[in-house]
Amino acid sequence: MNFISDNVVGASPKILAAIAAANDGAAGSYGADAWTARVEAQLNAFFEREVTAFMVATGTAANALAAAAICPPWGTLLTHRESHVIDDECGAPEFYMGGAKIAGLPGMGGKITPETIDIHFENEPGGTRRPPIKGLSIAQGTEFGLIYSPAEIAALAKTCRKHGLRLHMDGARFSNALVALGCTPAEMTWKAGVDVLSLGGTKNGCLMAEAVIFFDPALAEDFRFKRKRAGQTLSKQRLISAQFEAFFDGDHWRELATHANAMATRLAKGLKGIPGLRLGWDQQINQVFPIVSQGLWDHLAAAGVKCIDWSETSLPSDSPVGEDEVVLRLVTSFVTTAADVDALIGHVKAYSAKP
Amino acid sequence: MNFISDNVVGASPKILAAIAAANDGAAGSYGADAWTARVEAQLNAFFEREVTAFMVATGTAANALAAAAICPPWGTLLTHRESHVIDDECGAPEFYMGGAKIAGLPGMGGKITPETIDIHFENEPGGTRRPPIKGLSIAQGTEFGLIYSPAEIAALAKTCRKHGLRLHMDGARFSNALVALGCTPAEMTWKAGVDVLSLGGTKNGCLMAEAVIFFDPALAEDFRFKRKRAGQTLSKQRLISAQFEAFFDGDHWRELATHANAMATRLAKGLKGIPGLRLGWDQQINQVFPIVSQGLWDHLAAAGVKCIDWSETSLPSDSPVGEDEVVLRLVTSFVTTAADVDALIGHVKAYSAKP
Amino acid sequence: MNFISDNVVGASPKILAAIAAANDGAAGSYGADAWTARVEAQLNAFFEREVTAFMVATGTAANALAAAAICPPWGTLLTHRESHVIDDECGAPEFYMGGAKIAGLPGMGGKITPETIDIHFENEPGGTRRPPIKGLSIAQGTEFGLIYSPAEIAALAKTCRKHGLRLHMDGARFSNALVALGCTPAEMTWKAGVDVLSLGGTKNGCLMAEAVIFFDPALAEDFRFKRKRAGQTLSKQRLISAQFEAFFDGDHWRELATHANAMATRLAKGLKGIPGLRLGWDQQINQVFPIVSQGLWDHLAAAGVKCIDWSETSLPSDSPVGEDEVVLRLVTSFVTTAADVDALIGHVKAYSAKP
Amino acid sequence: MNFISDNVVGASPKILAAIAAANDGAAGSYGADAWTARVEAQLNAFFEREVTAFMVATGTAANALAAAAICPPWGTLLTHRESHVIDDECGAPEFYMGGAKIAGLPGMGGKITPETIDIHFENEPGGTRRPPIKGLSIAQGTEFGLIYSPAEIAALAKTCRKHGLRLHMDGARFSNALVALGCTPAEMTWKAGVDVLSLGGTKNGCLMAEAVIFFDPALAEDFRFKRKRAGQTLSKQRLISAQFEAFFDGDHWRELATHANAMATRLAKGLKGIPGLRLGWDQQINQVFPIVSQGLWDHLAAAGVKCIDWSETSLPSDSPVGEDEVVLRLVTSFVTTAADVDALIGHVKAYSAKP
Repeated sequence: MNFISDNVVGASPKILAAIAAANDGAAGSYGADAWTARVEAQLNAFFEREVTAFMVATGTAANALAAAAICPPWGTLLTHRESHVIDDECGAPEFYMGGAKIAGLPGMGGKITPETIDIHFENEPGGTRRPPIKGLSIAQGTEFGLIYSPAEIAALAKTCRKHGLRLHMDGARFSNALVALGCTPAEMTWKAGVDVLSLGGTKNGCLMAEAVIFFDPALAEDFRFKRKRAGQTLSKQRLISAQFEAFFDGDHWRELATHANAMATRLAKGLKGIPGLRLGWDQQINQVFPIVSQGLWDHLAAAGVKCIDWSETSLPSDSPVGEDEVVLRLVTSFVTTAADVDALIGHVKAYSAKP
Repeated sequence: MNFISDNVVGASPKILAAIAAANDGAAGSYGADAWTARVEAQLNAFFEREVTAFMVATGTAANALAAAAICPPWGTLLTHRESHVIDDECGAPEFYMGGAKIAGLPGMGGKITPETIDIHFENEPGGTRRPPIKGLSIAQGTEFGLIYSPAEIAALAKTCRKHGLRLHMDGARFSNALVALGCTPAEMTWKAGVDVLSLGGTKNGCLMAEAVIFFDPALAEDFRFKRKRAGQTLSKQRLISAQFEAFFDGDHWRELATHANAMATRLAKGLKGIPGLRLGWDQQINQVFPIVSQGLWDHLAAAGVKCIDWSETSLPSDSPVGEDEVVLRLVTSFVTTAADVDALIGHVKAYSAKP
Repeated sequence: MNFISDNVVGASPKILAAIAAANDGAAGSYGADAWTARVEAQLNAFFEREVTAFMVATGTAANALAAAAICPPWGTLLTHRESHVIDDECGAPEFYMGGAKIAGLPGMGGKITPETIDIHFENEPGGTRRPPIKGLSIAQGTEFGLIYSPAEIAALAKTCRKHGLRLHMDGARFSNALVALGCTPAEMTWKAGVDVLSLGGTKNGCLMAEAVIFFDPALAEDFRFKRKRAGQTLSKQRLISAQFEAFFDGDHWRELATHANAMATRLAKGLKGIPGLRLGWDQQINQVFPIVSQGLWDHLAAAGVKCIDWSETSLPSDSPVGEDEVVLRLVTSFVTTAADVDALIGHVKAYSAKP
Repeated sequence: MNFISDNVVGASPKILAAIAAANDGAAGSYGADAWTARVEAQLNAFFEREVTAFMVATGTAANALAAAAICPPWGTLLTHRESHVIDDECGAPEFYMGGAKIAGLPGMGGKITPETIDIHFENEPGGTRRPPIKGLSIAQGTEFGLIYSPAEIAALAKTCRKHGLRLHMDGARFSNALVALGCTPAEMTWKAGVDVLSLGGTKNGCLMAEAVIFFDPALAEDFRFKRKRAGQTLSKQRLISAQFEAFFDGDHWRELATHANAMATRLAKGLKGIPGLRLGWDQQINQVFPIVSQGLWDHLAAAGVKCIDWSETSLPSDSPVGEDEVVLRLVTSFVTTAADVDALIGHVKAYSAKP
């Protein structure tokens, strides 16, 4: 039972088949192929407007390229102080931005509020002591499994406009957030004021399919050069585009994410009420964060449950972690089964029932 | 008939099957998977020594990361003035090196000689006017289809050591060069003095499989961070590794490259002797460069032959291109058929036979 | 009465005279001059060992170049979270390091302890999620006027060696710290384990004299290229070197810093005991940080006292700043007079005596 | 007799006196001082329009910052293939631009023509193989002592606009060019279409006074942050501004440059007609480039004449340098005397007269 991440599994059968189907024949390299053209049309339909899309190899590259598109080398990018962008990408955003500064903001569960941004600006010293703040990067959902409502995103976007910032959304788990909200892709992005989106397919059933989506064409200027310069322009780009085509076809993405989210909901419900265990953050997408005793974690590990522990810094202030406790991250995916989930719950209950 | 490049086709059936076979089950992300471990073992056997290998998404990234491994931001990298590194990667090496300078050296057919390097050093002004020269990057084969013999590589490596340079080999068409030379991978690389190699699989039957190979472990220090920071560490790395596993298994790479080279040889032989046409450079790997009249090119295009024109700067001095002439690049691959080649030759002969 | 900073005044008469005296005649450019050679000899004597020294134009450049000498583009530099390096140099260290990450550590009064570093390492997630930590930058004195004893520096250096870090000291107020400690320059630097030092003269009586000093010659390799590439190699370098020569001649630096420190001590003593006022941090060098009411600050401003307010984040935990209070920074220099200090104290007393 | 460069001498007496006069009293740091304000007003008058000016420490920094202002990290900057920017600044422009590419264009005597630019664009391959060309940097005067007429600059600017490029002028010897042309500063810059200028005072009588001048305010946006981030914002900026104030006051710059140019003219006239010697390029500013025998150079060196040899690549095609010949660079300055010049001529004549 592997709950370590949603990137430990391969592709959905449909997406794998699409790779095979795209293999034969000659096609233009570097994106000048029919698959890419079709995905671009799908994306326009998906977002209900014309967008500019660039396929890339990794989510890290998507985020770093997007960050560089909204923050110049001499600028500052705001993000949550425990965001993936600041903490898990080994300095890729700094590298792609050409040495810009990233300032980390606090916020429960990885979420940033307009007030936090306003306070940050109030504390700026003025003059030229700090690089000017140029952009905000938020994650939908966050590293702690939380999501922003369209209204919350719109409020952040309004605050961004007030301070002259561009808004980036890290959508590594875009599908899961969308399914959880039940809104349209447009409502969760450009209609709420998002300027550029990292749209991830890899964590939701693709082998490798990430894209940078621009809603503001001006921001996309020269981006094809920036992508190539980053070594992110695949010669046989149909490899990515074929995956995305299957991903969007017949709302396959929705099917996959709905399942993953449902498994997390089943898990959260099953865990709630078991003595000696509580959830660090609400379950909203495909992640569950129980706060457990070290003994329970050891018990689960011995039973073959694979998962990792997680940071407690962004817990709600009324949820302190005890000396002997640990926050676990349990991630479900399109291949997680109800049986897996129930078995995990069973292990927890068995441990809890011990005298 | 598409002779534009060896990256316009998909994967070989064996390699495509390997992707599908690698899809099921959970596996460690970011390279902690069984496929990657097996490829690493294969590479050690392939090179007859322990090597340090890193999979990446593109050949541009492989070259740029390798360049950065041998040349610091404040250094100068030498390469041929018409190399892929300097001319076709949209500044990726400069970006990855962090602003280092690339100095282009002259040389027939994209090949650099020890004398050229010595002359370059003799002309250096001293002091701190120029960034210190730190590395040399050569292509095996070159953009003009030529290859270095192991002895030529060893002579370049000796010159590099004399001047304190590290040696990188761009092996986007490594397999084709190896087959043409008939030597071992070891003889063409570390035994001849190569420090770091970009090993390309994409142009020889993979969908996307590139690797940076270090023969000097000291150069590989921290490289896992550099790769991650470049957005080149795939979460589902088995996608690349499975391709490489099939590529090396049973010398599949050799089979593919032998065919591609043979098709180019067939093409070159067929073209030789046709009036009004000559080859710009010797055919050594899977590329043929006929110098033809504009009229012939138009004729071929009308007949459905796809190919592109090429630079004439590095032609031998006795091969000037006439006013009405153009250098064509014809690239063969593992899917090129003898029938394709013969049809192309037929079109040329037909045009040539016109009154 | 200007207590805003020690960089609002010009040069000491002796240093100004040295600039004039160095003006005549031809001299080698870019540092190949007699003044530079003499300063290098002075520095060897000053530090009681051979050092490698490079003059630069600003303290920001000195710090940024030094940071880049100990931390590569793919690394992380540790420093205090309110250090000048992280907060006041507009991203210069990030720029010069080529996009490295700076991690801010907490600590009272801008000082870092070995324990803080150990805790930071314990919390590192491992793998390749974060750029590897390569160096530590400390300020002597800190932005809050505090200094490290040689024993404290040695303890930090020991912790650095344990974790494989190089140690940089930002010595913008090096002279003031040295005078306050009464130790030798050697004891405060290389004997305690410092690898590279930013030695500042500008804040202590020069017009523009900063240097990067290497105690480890290996770290200085290629530094002359790095400095030139940063636009920090002055063609008429004698302008800087002449200042430093006068600065070191006859321990002029000591004379200047002793006066500045004494004025701060006089100020701190005079302020202590006045009702409604306390010092945020101990006065150790040429800075005093009274915590005062907004009313007192307004009163001082109206009386012509110029100074700025300061961050309260690094105050001792038992020194909270009230709603109506503000932390002031008062900086003395070689031109501050006892009359200035006494007048300032007088204004404070007058306000305090009001009913 | 030192003819090595115009940066081997100190400051003019008037400029040195201005430094001393600016020393007393407190002044705002980082440019918030009265000297800087006055220089800004002088510059507006000098250029007959409002300009945005930033003082920096070196000409290399001025050029590199200006290059970065017109060419982003993912762009290409055009310049002469033997310009100071490409050949003598140790990669500073690449560093400041954040890894952009510099493409070197040919041209007699360091001068670029519109036709050369057009040809370069015609040869661009299209697609994303090369970073897009964003700017052109020309030197007034060139490394070979030649200057562009206002009409020539205007023609280049027109070509720049046609291709979407911004135009930078490296004015390290701006004064010398201006005096030689006899036109106004406005005519040589913005009226001809220059967007940004590196205005040098150091080579014409200052100790250290360089500025980046923007004629297009949009290009200057955020520049104060870029300068600070580059470690080029002096805390005691009055040091530079006081020099510039004296430089512009009463057209002191003109007086200095007129003398330097006159000495070069005297030298060129004196050398012409001496057997066995010819000038590589016309003498237009304060540099003379005789092509001499190695024997003559040895003779001059023995006589105490200091100068350096120079590149012959950009000589007119009808001026090949013989096996035993060398191109010398002789630079005059505001302190060069007619006696120095005549003595040098005398040495040449004496050698020439030998049997």
